[in-house]
Amino acid sequence: MTDRIQQFLRSRTEDGPCLVLDLEVVRDNYQAFSKALPDTRVFYAVKANPDPQVLELLARLGSCFDTASVVEIQQVLAAGASADRISFGNTIKKERDIARAYALGVRLFAVDCEAEVEKIARAAPGSRVFCRILCDGEGAEWPLSRKFGCAPSLAPRVLEHAHRLGLQAFGLSFHVGSQQRNPLMWDSALRSSSEIFKDLAERGITLQMVNLGGGFPTKYLRDVPAVKAYGEAIFHSLRKHFGNKIPETIIEPGRGMVGNAGVIEAEVVLISKKSEDDSVKWVYLDIGKFNGLAETMDEMIRYPIRTAFDGDACEPCVLAGPTCDSVDVLYEKDPYLLPISLEIGSKVLIEGTGAYTTMYSSVGFNGFPPLKSYVI
Amino acid sequence: MTDRIQQFLRSRTEDGPCLVLDLEVVRDNYQAFSKALPDTRVFYAVKANPDPQVLELLARLGSCFDTASVVEIQQVLAAGASADRISFGNTIKKERDIARAYALGVRLFAVDCEAEVEKIARAAPGSRVFCRILCDGEGAEWPLSRKFGCAPSLAPRVLEHAHRLGLQAFGLSFHVGSQQRNPLMWDSALRSSSEIFKDLAERGITLQMVNLGGGFPTKYLRDVPAVKAYGEAIFHSLRKHFGNKIPETIIEPGRGMVGNAGVIEAEVVLISKKSEDDSVKWVYLDIGKFNGLAETMDEMIRYPIRTAFDGDACEPCVLAGPTCDSVDVLYEKDPYLLPISLEIGSKVLIEGTGAYTTMYSSVGFNGFPPLKSYVI
Repeated sequence: MTDRIQQFLRSRTEDGPCLVLDLEVVRDNYQAFSKALPDTRVFYAVKANPDPQVLELLARLGSCFDTASVVEIQQVLAAGASADRISFGNTIKKERDIARAYALGVRLFAVDCEAEVEKIARAAPGSRVFCRILCDGEGAEWPLSRKFGCAPSLAPRVLEHAHRLGLQAFGLSFHVGSQQRNPLMWDSALRSSSEIFKDLAERGITLQMVNLGGGFPTKYLRDVPAVKAYGEAIFHSLRKHFGNKIPETIIEPGRGMVGNAGVIEAEVVLISKKSEDDSVKWVYLDIGKFNGLAETMDEMIRYPIRTAFDGDACEPCVLAGPTCDSVDVLYEKDPYLLPISLEIGSKVLIEGTGAYTTMYSSVGFNGFPPLKSYVI
Repeated sequence: MTDRIQQFLRSRTEDGPCLVLDLEVVRDNYQAFSKALPDTRVFYAVKANPDPQVLELLARLGSCFDTASVVEIQQVLAAGASADRISFGNTIKKERDIARAYALGVRLFAVDCEAEVEKIARAAPGSRVFCRILCDGEGAEWPLSRKFGCAPSLAPRVLEHAHRLGLQAFGLSFHVGSQQRNPLMWDSALRSSSEIFKDLAERGITLQMVNLGGGFPTKYLRDVPAVKAYGEAIFHSLRKHFGNKIPETIIEPGRGMVGNAGVIEAEVVLISKKSEDDSVKWVYLDIGKFNGLAETMDEMIRYPIRTAFDGDACEPCVLAGPTCDSVDVLYEKDPYLLPISLEIGSKVLIEGTGAYTTMYSSVGFNGFPPLKSYVI
């Protein structure tokens, strides 16, 4: 929570929940990444928050961009970055979208199977491809599924196929899991990567790049290691596994770039008890899973919540959103301690909400509008 | 899947997934409800699908409407229904939204606690209120959480409070759980309701209405009982618990009204294996959890999927959406059997998708647009 955000909210008079995002924090985060990993190029994961002002700032600062779709590529170009700073990082692409990206100048694509390589060879001839490999998400608050990436044993075949079809077999990528709290978790994926580099070198193919992915955490309720610790651990592992031949590296921070730059202001709509002897109160906000807080799914992300009554005695509360949807409950398995003095109409501040909030909003489920966003 | 939908899709040339909804099926569903429960007023749950053409058709047919917000109330009024056919059925309302609804002519409100009663007494004086009670969701494919409703033991106090504040203590509501496959499940909630009716009668307050809620299923992969069976079971329970003094009743079908009227056409973007010895294939569609299929959450709803290759030999597939989000996986715990002959670029038809699809779409997560919808 920055002074600038506090000042903005003091003068706000509009109704309804909103996100306020402070660009100065984004700038600080970008510079912290650049400093911690000086030889690594930063590809901001646009999906975390594609607000034009965020993209323009990062474009000015020299960032590159990881995109998931043609629309995101267009947003990045509109923000002033050139196409050579864009990676089409989604492993799942329609061939006609690859062709559109190619027409827009994009020459760097993610793959994780031979079928995707073939699409790129046809629709984006001569481009660079990197193959995503699976790695276990141990240590992540939100381990990823097996959706993206192939087994490391399959990667050489995928990249050799690319090479054979006239593409540049450029490198590898992996993702250690979202909100990864352990800086050492990059190590085993880098060991797998170095083995694939060697395997392909023996086949006459020289890989050049390792995409270290995202996973850099933002601070919610628990402290997280500083970016510096990640930089040191990653550099150590690169040295260990690649020796003097350290490849070109890129990172794709999303949450780590914008998460702590944003604060959501919301309002308490109702406080009630389900029965006289219920041990928890129910606190209903005007924001929930369908207008910004989708990442409370399975209570994975536990946002810090500030109120005007902080310091007063607290009691356990189930926190829920405003829709008529029974799954629109934020914290119930593990109730949230909130001040007893909290009232209907009170404002609450939900911190660490700069990433993965606005874009998860539904188009208007139950008639509630998408989360408003102010970038300052 | 109706002939009209098939014909529409044959002539469609646009790119991207879409929902096609056949109004003739909605009309049939409305008439089936009216016939099965001739003495019950139908309040369509607008949140299931607020498309203007759906609302206009139902308004013409004489339906009433269950709404979750002021926006939905405005949508219903715009469709030509008068305010006396609208229930503000969300138990979580800002006082200023109650005032807006009142100004628009709405006089029927849901409550589940004294605090909500007080808001309504101030902002919508003299209105009718019904108290939602908790009931267990046994037998439902998607049992509801405890988010809405109070313990039946608390309801008399809530309604007496309403009476004392000049509101009309009008009745009770409950919800037996979404996609409720057992028509007998209304029985125990109706028994609780009759007890609350008696309790309040002793306090000199005459309740008049029982809102039987929604929960009426749509056919996905498994057969469900016909609406007629629900009508008979409910009437039997009303007789049993209320004798000759059967109260006014209303139902709030959403899924049961529009679910089977819609079909989504989607495209296979990628088919791959994660390793050579993997026992499942991964099939990626251009639709997923964030642009229409949110109800695959926890694999609760298993939609029927048709392809041009039905009848060919099948194999187990993990089904996933197109975003770079690892939770955007539709069926993995219990893989989906799909034809081996399915190819990248093949179209698939996802049936039973007329309810709870378009409105759950995100505003554009990963740059993918919200689900398009055609009402025919």
